Amino acid sequence: MTLHDLQTALIKNNFDAYIVTRGNMFLGQDTLDEENKIKELCGFSGSAGTLLVFRDKAVLMVDGRYELQAALETDSAAVSIVCTNDTVATWINNNQEQPCTFAYDPWCHSASEVDYWNRALKKHTFTPDTKQIIGPRLSNTQAEIFEHEIRFAGLSMNEKISKLTAFMEKNRLDAYFMAECDAVSWLMNLRSNCLPDTPLLRAYALISVDGSVSLFTSDFRAIEVELAAFNGKNIGVSFGQTPKQIYNIMKNQRIYPVNLANPVQNWKAVKNPVELQGFRDAHIRDGAAVVKFLHWLDKNWKNSDELGVVDKLYEFRSAGEHFFGNSFATIAASGPNGAIVHYHPDSRSNRKLDNDSLLLLDSGAQYYDGTTDITRTIALGKPAAEMIESFTQVLKAHIAAATAIFPEETPGIAIDSIARGRLWKFGKDYKHGTGHGVGHFLNVHEGPQRLASSGASYPLSANMITSIEPGYYQPSAYGIRIENLAAVTESEFPGYLKFEPLTMVPIDKRLINKYLLSRQEQAWLNDYHRLVAAKISPLLTGEDLSWLQQACTPL
Amino acid sequence: MTLHDLQTALIKNNFDAYIVTRGNMFLGQDTLDEENKIKELCGFSGSAGTLLVFRDKAVLMVDGRYELQAALETDSAAVSIVCTNDTVATWINNNQEQPCTFAYDPWCHSASEVDYWNRALKKHTFTPDTKQIIGPRLSNTQAEIFEHEIRFAGLSMNEKISKLTAFMEKNRLDAYFMAECDAVSWLMNLRSNCLPDTPLLRAYALISVDGSVSLFTSDFRAIEVELAAFNGKNIGVSFGQTPKQIYNIMKNQRIYPVNLANPVQNWKAVKNPVELQGFRDAHIRDGAAVVKFLHWLDKNWKNSDELGVVDKLYEFRSAGEHFFGNSFATIAASGPNGAIVHYHPDSRSNRKLDNDSLLLLDSGAQYYDGTTDITRTIALGKPAAEMIESFTQVLKAHIAAATAIFPEETPGIAIDSIARGRLWKFGKDYKHGTGHGVGHFLNVHEGPQRLASSGASYPLSANMITSIEPGYYQPSAYGIRIENLAAVTESEFPGYLKFEPLTMVPIDKRLINKYLLSRQEQAWLNDYHRLVAAKISPLLTGEDLSWLQQACTPL
Repeated sequence: MTLHDLQTALIKNNFDAYIVTRGNMFLGQDTLDEENKIKELCGFSGSAGTLLVFRDKAVLMVDGRYELQAALETDSAAVSIVCTNDTVATWINNNQEQPCTFAYDPWCHSASEVDYWNRALKKHTFTPDTKQIIGPRLSNTQAEIFEHEIRFAGLSMNEKISKLTAFMEKNRLDAYFMAECDAVSWLMNLRSNCLPDTPLLRAYALISVDGSVSLFTSDFRAIEVELAAFNGKNIGVSFGQTPKQIYNIMKNQRIYPVNLANPVQNWKAVKNPVELQGFRDAHIRDGAAVVKFLHWLDKNWKNSDELGVVDKLYEFRSAGEHFFGNSFATIAASGPNGAIVHYHPDSRSNRKLDNDSLLLLDSGAQYYDGTTDITRTIALGKPAAEMIESFTQVLKAHIAAATAIFPEETPGIAIDSIARGRLWKFGKDYKHGTGHGVGHFLNVHEGPQRLASSGASYPLSANMITSIEPGYYQPSAYGIRIENLAAVTESEFPGYLKFEPLTMVPIDKRLINKYLLSRQEQAWLNDYHRLVAAKISPLLTGEDLSWLQQACTPL
Repeated sequence: MTLHDLQTALIKNNFDAYIVTRGNMFLGQDTLDEENKIKELCGFSGSAGTLLVFRDKAVLMVDGRYELQAALETDSAAVSIVCTNDTVATWINNNQEQPCTFAYDPWCHSASEVDYWNRALKKHTFTPDTKQIIGPRLSNTQAEIFEHEIRFAGLSMNEKISKLTAFMEKNRLDAYFMAECDAVSWLMNLRSNCLPDTPLLRAYALISVDGSVSLFTSDFRAIEVELAAFNGKNIGVSFGQTPKQIYNIMKNQRIYPVNLANPVQNWKAVKNPVELQGFRDAHIRDGAAVVKFLHWLDKNWKNSDELGVVDKLYEFRSAGEHFFGNSFATIAASGPNGAIVHYHPDSRSNRKLDNDSLLLLDSGAQYYDGTTDITRTIALGKPAAEMIESFTQVLKAHIAAATAIFPEETPGIAIDSIARGRLWKFGKDYKHGTGHGVGHFLNVHEGPQRLASSGASYPLSANMITSIEPGYYQPSAYGIRIENLAAVTESEFPGYLKFEPLTMVPIDKRLINKYLLSRQEQAWLNDYHRLVAAKISPLLTGEDLSWLQQACTPL
């Protein structure tokens, strides 16, 4: 559908405007490229933004990361670009003087969001586009659904559902409607190959308090039929994560929707012993693959480019046991490209690996037993003293978080401050979080916990997994990030927690000025490298093994 | 009024219950002892709590600090004690099944709080006790009002009011009604001697956009008369800080109350150059007084007790220039008393200073040019190695905050995490904030900024003042706290801030195990002591001077 087609449809349907999001009916989850309505309508392909289509104009709201890209990809005669961090509601409130009838797809906005519009923007009317004049919002791609085996998952579907039905009984619910497909995937021990990097099963689930489950993966009209059985009953649902349309169906069926955060989001964040051991095992295999790659890179970087790095790394990883795919599109950023935080190389941007520079390499894999995510910054040639100084400072921030001890239930913001505070001492900072949760053979970014300077109040507890990834970015010059995954674990002090490193790959000593590290910091690095050598050596032979041993010698 | 009198009045007035707070019509500000209705009705004298008086029972809600004290001070036949951190609304929601008519004094609850009750507790009725059956809520104590001279205040009343009228013009207000008496005191450059420790002028102010001001200090019926002139106009008011009664008066006068946070709270947190220099000067005089006291203590502690310490310290301080009074009741806590965080000695609890123990001394003064607040923990005899270890660990936490560098607008929670995180490494913590703002010859605790693990999102900016006061408390054994005031100031990095210490008193080296300090930490302490010696020496002579010089020698 073109922008003009939609504008014609607006007139025909008596709408003044249409609020178009990038997402599909699984709010906030990964989407397929062909599902991106914003791209289809105006060409903008960035990973965040909202398009407001009026009868005679269109406004594309993007954040600062995408201002330039949006201008390049769209037709300035048809689309005005607004660079803002405001929500669409704030924009409408500040800019739309005349009362206006906005259409929206009720499958693509949460009940909470639409309720907020109606409450906060009383002057305007928000009408669900029940005819989907914008076209369907979920691609019909046939996906293979497969079981996430109990030897990897650790808990059976029945055990998980029993826990959920107990939760329903406690909250006097007759059922729970789960629109969050990552939670559904975890609950059902089901996965699919629908998306390129994340083995999500894209499905809604209706779980009855008697333990029976209805899954909805393609025929969503069945939701109405299944819900009809719950007329007059209480169904739990998370308003903020559930499409408005589900809420509307419930209301029509005289069901009482009870707004209750989906408890599965918390349960799956705390890994069970099998999941945790799987993470450890997967990281050892992943570490061996990355070490082989790093050894290859040392010998071959002069004749390589960013896309070559992406392919070669995939080649090493994909040869490993239990490999399913990458966990996200590899960021291989040479020299100044490293300073672009959300950079991914493509054929246009692809850069040869520069001499005397840094390569920032952020990558990860999905293995059936665990998900990995690692960033290493690698010296090519002889990097400048300033790069070494910055790298060592980022390493200090990484070590500050990695060695933190903290009370149970400490919110992630505290760990963020501890890492970031170390770098602030040098007048440096990074405009991204310090860490994110990681799903088990699921989303590589998974809440509810995170380490960040805002929105990170969720308490940390034992057996959660988080990345630790401070960085520093010198515009047009270089980028540095040092990322390990770590498990939250008991410390020597009762009631206090610490981090156990999962990622097992050497940190480039050529970029460390040891005289800038304290004795304790040096000891942490040497201990970490001793551990990496012990875990990874058994998987390597010959020159790969020698390279690892050399990379892991003490400072 | 007795509990029984109030219960009789409830029946007579058709109320089921009365919500009694400790505060007066200056919500959340210091009160006089005789204004404490909770103490009058049931005997409980603690600094926090809510009393719910029903016709046939009374419920006293207190937090964990006061559970024991509440039981000791009240008659268990008449009053049930509930130990909770819940609000009164939560308690009513969870415990009051039958619909109930609650009376409350509309001068003693904010408009926001009452609105919340009405919204969240629809089953019950909340009726303002306009007849004040509970009696008047402000003591008629004659107080002397005096001007806070421009040589101390730095900005004239007219300059401050001009800034406020500009704010009103920008927000299209015809007036601002200010119920926060600390803000009124600052705005008007007026103070009074009404309260024992805080030179607050207890007054409301109505400031018109033309710059004219009406002050209300005792005849509060005049409010209605003055407001009558604003019929049909917009008056700014902070709903969360303004008694419901003011809001009701406005509504009756057909005034439009516009809920806008009082900007003076932010303005007075950022000190002007005269206030800042006054703080520095006051801290030098205060430091000299405290040093004289510490020298006296070293010679005399064996024959002293906590109350003796309080008196002696007052004697040294009150001899100094510009002295007005203490800034709060001195905490002098010997040995195990130090582990009680909110301890104040009285004739019953007064303890002789124990040998081989710690004295925790938290005190401060109001000088016309600035307010001080300092905690030192002092070795008496030969404290145990464990105490020295804990003291050194708390010192490390203090230094971590004191040496922090952080971007402009960093919220206080980040600094809290940096200090607390240092202590967490030893499996230790403290159940209070790391720091609070300080008023200029006003409240010794003053927001909006604070350093704490929750409720500390307000951004720090240059020329704010904060305490830095990590601690550690070993129940029934000892308490440690090391508190300096510091000014937020520019760092060497553009856009980054740091702390400038204001407090100028040696930290007891007899409690420091220097081998537990890093070189940087040792350097901080030695630099600090060098600064203290340089600033305070000119004010001392003879043995006092020798004592200071000895206390300030390098580690």
